Amino acid sequence: MTASVRRGRRPGAPDTRAAILDAARDQFAAQGFGRTTIRGVAGAAGVDPALVHHYFGTKQDLFVAALELPFDPREVIGPVAEQGIDGAAERLLTVFLGVWDDPELRPGLLGVVRGILEPGGPVLIRDGFLPAVVLPLATALGLDQPERRMPFVASQIIGLIMARYILEIEPLASLPADQVVAVVAPTIQRYFEMPLP
Amino acid sequence: MTASVRRGRRPGAPDTRAAILDAARDQFAAQGFGRTTIRGVAGAAGVDPALVHHYFGTKQDLFVAALELPFDPREVIGPVAEQGIDGAAERLLTVFLGVWDDPELRPGLLGVVRGILEPGGPVLIRDGFLPAVVLPLATALGLDQPERRMPFVASQIIGLIMARYILEIEPLASLPADQVVAVVAPTIQRYFEMPLP
Repeated sequence: MTASVRRGRRPGAPDTRAAILDAARDQFAAQGFGRTTIRGVAGAAGVDPALVHHYFGTKQDLFVAALELPFDPREVIGPVAEQGIDGAAERLLTVFLGVWDDPELRPGLLGVVRGILEPGGPVLIRDGFLPAVVLPLATALGLDQPERRMPFVASQIIGLIMARYILEIEPLASLPADQVVAVVAPTIQRYFEMPLP
Repeated sequence: MTASVRRGRRPGAPDTRAAILDAARDQFAAQGFGRTTIRGVAGAAGVDPALVHHYFGTKQDLFVAALELPFDPREVIGPVAEQGIDGAAERLLTVFLGVWDDPELRPGLLGVVRGILEPGGPVLIRDGFLPAVVLPLATALGLDQPERRMPFVASQIIGLIMARYILEIEPLASLPADQVVAVVAPTIQRYFEMPLP
């Protein structure tokens, strides 16, 4: 992990950095996460692959940077996994709603959600965000068959974003975060632990 | 309920009908469901209010027609409620996935979902679809405090649409409908029946 995807000052010459990010977004959207390479992104941006590594770290770091989230989701999710499976859903939702309820962060997050419905957006989430961010959480929690469980976890979290922050359905949109957590955490915890059909 | 929102032949002169629907969509989007009136829509379309009633029935009928769904959601949801609260979530999801898994219906539904993120889209869902379609289901099921429960129901259903049909997250996207129902129905049933915080 590098500091480059955090909020605040970003290293590197702005033009070169922006060119790499543009190339990365194009390639992740066109080819998915798996088939995109640091070398290919570097080639499209006209820079040396070592410079991409220097600015952004690993391919996963580059992917998270290309999402242009207003924070690094792995820094947020890491502590959730460290405390083990008990209460993991409650911790995940508490952290998650804390981020979305932050008025400084929300505009950037809304932009990301709108991007999902643009061409290439579904690919970025499906082939990038899930394997780069969500599945590592499931693995760190020690879940069995995480790749079968996590789409259901994602479905409830994505729907909660849509209902509370995009559609602003009341009273959910105005409910204190702890009440939302009380209702939704058992759903997520069940998707973590339930026997699969 | 009228036949005008079903698939198939639609009554009324096409131009007049289209003008009424255009005016209705504008006004529902700009003012929400509550403040839109049949009289106001008729005025904007340059027709007599009686003609709007004649073509579309009630304001709720007009709203559902303006959504341009490829079916009338109330005809689908009605039988779910008639059999009572036991198993209601399982029946709702089975009907719901049956509609979405129909290759003839899905393109129209995807268009509606994309419209949610356009200007006015959230208002149509929040102030129209919920009170006109979803809350009547909750009322027919005899749920207490339906207006507090249904946003959570909506959150899981909207998220399931996004994950299975828009983002096409595997293996959820390819899972047989009955397996999806087995995983998600207990979530919805709990939102129907759980004690609220």
